[in-house]
Amino acid sequence: MSAGINTYKIDLREIYFTLFEQFGFGQVAGQAPYDAWGSDEARAVLSETYRFAREVLGPLNSVGDREGCRVENGSVLTPTGFKDAWKKLYEQGFKTVSVSPEHGGQGAPMMLQVTVEELLSGSNSAFNMYPGLAFGAAEVIAECGTKEQQHQFVERMLNGTWGGTMCLTEPHAGSDVGAAKSTARRNGDGTYSIKGTKIFISGGDHDMADNVIHLVLARIDGAAPGTKGLSLFIVPKLRINADGSAGKANDVSVGSIEHKMGINGSATCVLNFGESDGCLGELVGTVEHVGMSQMFKMMNGARIAVGIQGVSLAAAAYYNALDYAKDRKQGSHFTKWKDPTAPRAAIIEHPDVRRMLLDMKAHVEGIRALIIKLAHHLDKARQLTGKDDEAATYHKGQVELLTPLVKSYGSDQAYRICSQAIQVYGGAGYIQDYPVEQYTRDSKIFSIYEGTNHIQAMDLVGRKLGQAGGMFFQQFMGDVGSFVEAHRENPVYGDAVKALASAQEALMSSAMMLFGWSQDGGKFPLIPLSANRFLNMMSEVAVGWLLLDAALIADKASAALSADHPDRAFYDGKKFSALFYARNVLPGVEQAARLIALEDTSPVDISDAAFGGV
Amino acid sequence: MSAGINTYKIDLREIYFTLFEQFGFGQVAGQAPYDAWGSDEARAVLSETYRFAREVLGPLNSVGDREGCRVENGSVLTPTGFKDAWKKLYEQGFKTVSVSPEHGGQGAPMMLQVTVEELLSGSNSAFNMYPGLAFGAAEVIAECGTKEQQHQFVERMLNGTWGGTMCLTEPHAGSDVGAAKSTARRNGDGTYSIKGTKIFISGGDHDMADNVIHLVLARIDGAAPGTKGLSLFIVPKLRINADGSAGKANDVSVGSIEHKMGINGSATCVLNFGESDGCLGELVGTVEHVGMSQMFKMMNGARIAVGIQGVSLAAAAYYNALDYAKDRKQGSHFTKWKDPTAPRAAIIEHPDVRRMLLDMKAHVEGIRALIIKLAHHLDKARQLTGKDDEAATYHKGQVELLTPLVKSYGSDQAYRICSQAIQVYGGAGYIQDYPVEQYTRDSKIFSIYEGTNHIQAMDLVGRKLGQAGGMFFQQFMGDVGSFVEAHRENPVYGDAVKALASAQEALMSSAMMLFGWSQDGGKFPLIPLSANRFLNMMSEVAVGWLLLDAALIADKASAALSADHPDRAFYDGKKFSALFYARNVLPGVEQAARLIALEDTSPVDISDAAFGGV
Repeated sequence: MSAGINTYKIDLREIYFTLFEQFGFGQVAGQAPYDAWGSDEARAVLSETYRFAREVLGPLNSVGDREGCRVENGSVLTPTGFKDAWKKLYEQGFKTVSVSPEHGGQGAPMMLQVTVEELLSGSNSAFNMYPGLAFGAAEVIAECGTKEQQHQFVERMLNGTWGGTMCLTEPHAGSDVGAAKSTARRNGDGTYSIKGTKIFISGGDHDMADNVIHLVLARIDGAAPGTKGLSLFIVPKLRINADGSAGKANDVSVGSIEHKMGINGSATCVLNFGESDGCLGELVGTVEHVGMSQMFKMMNGARIAVGIQGVSLAAAAYYNALDYAKDRKQGSHFTKWKDPTAPRAAIIEHPDVRRMLLDMKAHVEGIRALIIKLAHHLDKARQLTGKDDEAATYHKGQVELLTPLVKSYGSDQAYRICSQAIQVYGGAGYIQDYPVEQYTRDSKIFSIYEGTNHIQAMDLVGRKLGQAGGMFFQQFMGDVGSFVEAHRENPVYGDAVKALASAQEALMSSAMMLFGWSQDGGKFPLIPLSANRFLNMMSEVAVGWLLLDAALIADKASAALSADHPDRAFYDGKKFSALFYARNVLPGVEQAARLIALEDTSPVDISDAAFGGV
Repeated sequence: MSAGINTYKIDLREIYFTLFEQFGFGQVAGQAPYDAWGSDEARAVLSETYRFAREVLGPLNSVGDREGCRVENGSVLTPTGFKDAWKKLYEQGFKTVSVSPEHGGQGAPMMLQVTVEELLSGSNSAFNMYPGLAFGAAEVIAECGTKEQQHQFVERMLNGTWGGTMCLTEPHAGSDVGAAKSTARRNGDGTYSIKGTKIFISGGDHDMADNVIHLVLARIDGAAPGTKGLSLFIVPKLRINADGSAGKANDVSVGSIEHKMGINGSATCVLNFGESDGCLGELVGTVEHVGMSQMFKMMNGARIAVGIQGVSLAAAAYYNALDYAKDRKQGSHFTKWKDPTAPRAAIIEHPDVRRMLLDMKAHVEGIRALIIKLAHHLDKARQLTGKDDEAATYHKGQVELLTPLVKSYGSDQAYRICSQAIQVYGGAGYIQDYPVEQYTRDSKIFSIYEGTNHIQAMDLVGRKLGQAGGMFFQQFMGDVGSFVEAHRENPVYGDAVKALASAQEALMSSAMMLFGWSQDGGKFPLIPLSANRFLNMMSEVAVGWLLLDAALIADKASAALSADHPDRAFYDGKKFSALFYARNVLPGVEQAARLIALEDTSPVDISDAAFGGV
């Protein structure tokens, strides 16, 4: 498609189903702090967002990709149209749907925000990173900053007046954040002089806002090594005048921007702080050396956001591929393939194309359900704020547990699904006339940033599984188990539910193996060697469960409709998503458990020299 | 890496092992028609080719990607340096290593040519497509053309004087070649007037040779519909003068070139033939309406070439990732991960990085072995030319059978492995400073062109399995079975060999299911639904077998060396490739058989409407 044409499309009916029918948005909304919200309001926001996504952001997606960003006179210029889109985005308040009114937001449930974000990100992933980073940075200040900092920064960063960034990575400190060398010197007046180079800073500079507020991890002179010695600083691109307006430059300069495989509309910057010793920052809050834990306040949010990016492109790839498959004629129906005079069939008639499409459909719906489920737990936890009871603990625990799944499974599958969309198109998918090759390139980064997917897997098996003495994991398994028990004998889904039960048992057996290895120094390497596999297994159990749950809800809803009701087909689609996943994906969990049980240590047994090379 | 810097690297020792130690190049060479060839000659050619790949083609790989091709005044201009590289390539004779001396070649075994091609393609896939297409077109003329055509075209197309293309695809005739609408009108003087539009023509025009010879599939007025009515024509870009030189233009014009995800150095053209009714062609050979079977003469070669492209980029990705992993320091050794003062470790010390690298290593070596094995069968078949005995039939049959595996498994794994290389690099892999993101983009097309991988899978299950009454498949299974019986009790590899045996049994059970479905109309859709899975299973059995075979050979060779011999580590690497594959990949064959046995028809049961969309 030529740059400037919208190619974004999804099926809002799917989102409505998951939000309203599967996760009972209406039961969460309507209660404090979501009193003002109900399903009608949510529907209105989503249809408005979708219109904005198709009319404003969608047409800029390929523009951003082809034009990319550029640096002129030390400043980043974003692609044509981005500045205007930024203005409209904030005018219409799409980034503050779930922000509390105290910071100028509309106070809606997170369940709504995550679906709004899917639409923004799906129509233009690269663009949506700029406001996304500003949001994350504002969140940290809102949570950890002083009252004054909150007053000065948060609302401006949430309403688009100022941008924001998260400056963690350095040339030799990527996954290993604690190796950061950037320094902060106390100036005695409460300010700090910041010095250092940060790389891979998304939205590190841009021309869409009046100022960019950097959150910078740096080590105060004399602080401990590693992450424990890091502090977090607010470092504006332009210093803030007494009246709150942006003033003179703060010695933050753009060294360069990266040339990447994708998300070209997002400026990935090298930033130099204090090259002329004139970079001033202020500590976030009042306590030094707690930068890492402050940064972690936004980490769950950032990781969920990556999962949303994943499902957003996977969904856009699916609906584009689906439309292409309905439209494109090639070959004859497979029952007549030997007859050259048979009418040419749309490629959706070909079984292998249907297989690819159903595979994409099932994964997209299941991962979206997992994300909305996680948001549901966030909302419940927020509604129970201040209570330290069982329910509050349960919901918070599930957020912790599911976050690495959403981030990793969402991103791995996004790349696979977008790549598969290319395959549905055939040669056409490889050219820039269609959006799927860009989706594929854009989505590859999701498995890397905000903590690589292996880091997520280690977070799951090394931390989350054992949290609260393993209770969160047991609660998750208990939820799946209750579902299995309730539906094991279902006449339509019995076999599928049994496949889920077997997958769950396999997951438990692998969890026990991991536990055993953690008690046995000699087998410790098996933990990182198996972590990705385990995360994948648990994601598949979760997604398989949610797809079956959706199918049962859909069947009930469908039964209440007249035989020719147009929603019948929609509900039928939920059944096939669940059955396909149960028959083609869930058995892989048992298989993965068998592989884990083999305790293969060949990757650590092989010597470096035996890898070969020159 | 800046454009113009070589990043190509592999380990020639690996190729030497597979060629000389595993597949006995020396036993094939030295006998007619390969009398002039021995291992020393092969080694000399390979080291020369590798030098050329690193010094000439490698530095142009990123140049081609960044610059791409452009059309000026109706002609394609290739990226800087390509023209010079083309000249050097042909001066040094790398494209004619296996061509018979009668056409100006060196007459070496195909086993050598496929490894030479790996080096040319791995260092610059996009560049190597131009001579590759010329080679394929020349092959067709050599095999099917008249004596005069052979004399006029073949040598010039093999020595770089002229380029060549294969013009099959049209806007509505991609996988469905038989739907082609291009026409040929008899002019009464033996020439034909060609009219039509061809798309996705690789190297459809370029500035490196004096002329481009197109082979064009078109339908002579009044011929039958479908593939059976197609004829093949030689259509030069510039008409050929009586003295054999290139003359005036032949009404072939470049409509446009595609903007693609990758292989940007390769011009993918829309070609218009006969827009002004002035396009003349001559029939290949003397018989009309046999164009499809003529084209198929080069199809095996083209498909093997795609498998080589696959392994070539996968290998380059592996060795680049390996070097990066040895060099890049990040985090501490996993036994000391909680200690921020521990020395930073090279990332190859991290178990998950080692797991990814060993996975890449095993696949690269196994797929390369499969390709050389196929070439070995080609060579044996050639040596037995004229004989119609069991041995000749056997070798030809294995070529038929293994070609779809090499094409599909080679290409699918290439894309996966290159993507995994990005993951090894982390964020650095996503930027153009390193070659792996380009490899990934370049490799995605391999699963699509020269027949999509699903077409390969249908070729395997619908044609090849049943060829000669199933004999070729039985012979393949027999070869694997003999290996299993010989080594089942091996003290080191016993378990791995048993895993191969189980995989082979599973493959057989799936083959029987496919056979059953082919006899049962109601279950016919299960064949296309399972074809890709079956192709993958058979590829994994083949690769697992060849890796174990290599490991046993390596062990024997290693035992004869002194304990401190530098080759010890190399041979040790073969052991780990085999063990890793046997423990992590081969069990997947049984799993795939279990899934096939489920007979899931959900993709064809779901209605079009239930897929959703708007």
